[in-house]
Amino acid sequence: MTIRKTDSSQNIESLLQATELFMFQAIGQTKAKNITVVMRYHIESGGARVRARLALNAGLALNLEKKINVSLSACCELIHNASLLHDDIQDGDEMRRGRMAAWLKFDINSAMCAGTLMLSAAYNAVSQVTVYSPQLIAHLHQRTSDLISGQIIDFTSLASVIDVKTYLDMAKGKTGSLLALPLELVMISANEPTALPFAKVAGESFAVAYQIADDMSDLQADLANSRTNIVGILENTGVTRPEALSQAKLLAKENLKFATEYAAKLPANSGAYFIKLCEALKEKIDTSQPSSIENV
Amino acid sequence: MTIRKTDSSQNIESLLQATELFMFQAIGQTKAKNITVVMRYHIESGGARVRARLALNAGLALNLEKKINVSLSACCELIHNASLLHDDIQDGDEMRRGRMAAWLKFDINSAMCAGTLMLSAAYNAVSQVTVYSPQLIAHLHQRTSDLISGQIIDFTSLASVIDVKTYLDMAKGKTGSLLALPLELVMISANEPTALPFAKVAGESFAVAYQIADDMSDLQADLANSRTNIVGILENTGVTRPEALSQAKLLAKENLKFATEYAAKLPANSGAYFIKLCEALKEKIDTSQPSSIENV
Repeated sequence: MTIRKTDSSQNIESLLQATELFMFQAIGQTKAKNITVVMRYHIESGGARVRARLALNAGLALNLEKKINVSLSACCELIHNASLLHDDIQDGDEMRRGRMAAWLKFDINSAMCAGTLMLSAAYNAVSQVTVYSPQLIAHLHQRTSDLISGQIIDFTSLASVIDVKTYLDMAKGKTGSLLALPLELVMISANEPTALPFAKVAGESFAVAYQIADDMSDLQADLANSRTNIVGILENTGVTRPEALSQAKLLAKENLKFATEYAAKLPANSGAYFIKLCEALKEKIDTSQPSSIENV
Repeated sequence: MTIRKTDSSQNIESLLQATELFMFQAIGQTKAKNITVVMRYHIESGGARVRARLALNAGLALNLEKKINVSLSACCELIHNASLLHDDIQDGDEMRRGRMAAWLKFDINSAMCAGTLMLSAAYNAVSQVTVYSPQLIAHLHQRTSDLISGQIIDFTSLASVIDVKTYLDMAKGKTGSLLALPLELVMISANEPTALPFAKVAGESFAVAYQIADDMSDLQADLANSRTNIVGILENTGVTRPEALSQAKLLAKENLKFATEYAAKLPANSGAYFIKLCEALKEKIDTSQPSSIENV
């Protein structure tokens, strides 16, 4: 079996299109047509397909066969979108990508079933694509477990008492597991198992930085609604608001540095796209002014 | 690789114990400990482990290696119990196996996460156990899709307008898919793919008979609460209550006959335990008096 194959006609946009098609192929025909309507509404609402791009770019760098590459990226987007469908129900979030969340547009039960079916389809997407499929499946379960643990920590932690360590665990679980996954699935499929820990640290560290940047943007709204926010957590340790903002920014940048360093350790420059994401986030954090964020 | 191995020390009770252990092994360590508490509460609440018994008995008949057999039975129980956790939330059922349903004992979000993690673990349970793991995974997704379709039909169908065909589709999906699954996974693992359609018809037909018998028992409560019931559906076609009861009983027995016939077609007498289940259900239906059921 050819695992690696160079195909110069491959480019990201065509691979992304193939990913969209393969997501529905992996879901398959459903006997209840209305569930497909719900999934289509959610999937076609957009999203930057960051996880697909992470997988595809890394897969191209490691010369993964197109079919394998597309399967991995579809798998990552399926589980990511499944988690969004369930999270919106659990958090009561009414909007997603500028539209009504699926549970509100349709109903909670349908959105819940749609999410569950898409998680199942994530497994189907990689079930038969490479000789490494068994390892891909086992790894997918590990990251699903981490994702769910992060979500559980989130909704069982009171914003008023959560500590920094718990906050980091939550970000690593809820966001980091699915940011590491695309790189990890590529490493498994390219027979580069020694690179797996680098992908994990990169994904988790980026997630922490991303969550902190997000918290700094949403500070006023979060504090007004007693939601978990790293600035509030740091303030609980006894420092002033400006000190907390400064510490948060430092923590984000340290994690971003880690993320970049570890992505750079991935073979054949396969972390290059990931590093670009790190640079874009670093610029966002650098140009944000704690005082201006505070005043939003 | 040895796929079939005779081990005379194997017996159902020890295999069932191994199944319980393997269910938690397939779930794995979770970073949020409270999710394990929810899963343990639900799994250890009992249940007849019918799907485990179906898989184990069929696997023994086909001399499946113990490790494979236990993986298949754990997989079936994990997805079955995952579906119960989610169904209880969706249907608002407050009791399960004589105890408070998990969503009521804990909370909806935790029960939802527990169900999702157990579905994921069902995939993990069979991910690396045989050379047929890729086919097992693909098949598991197909039955998950059928199960979800059945559930969708259930909660989108108004009891007052549902027709017989929709009722049958619902029973085949909601109940039949996971009754066929244990036999199907064994057929795939024993390299008996031509037996798959027999397992499917057997599981789906039994499910229809089971659902009808259940409806006949719950008739008064279902009609009082405007819930879907085959007797009500038949009455909507213009027949009297006694005629509807008689037709329902006939429909159940015809399906049971089908289930038995098709289970008998499975290789090496591997449908023997399934046929015993059919006989037990037939006796229950035969000894029930429509008039007495009607008066409950």
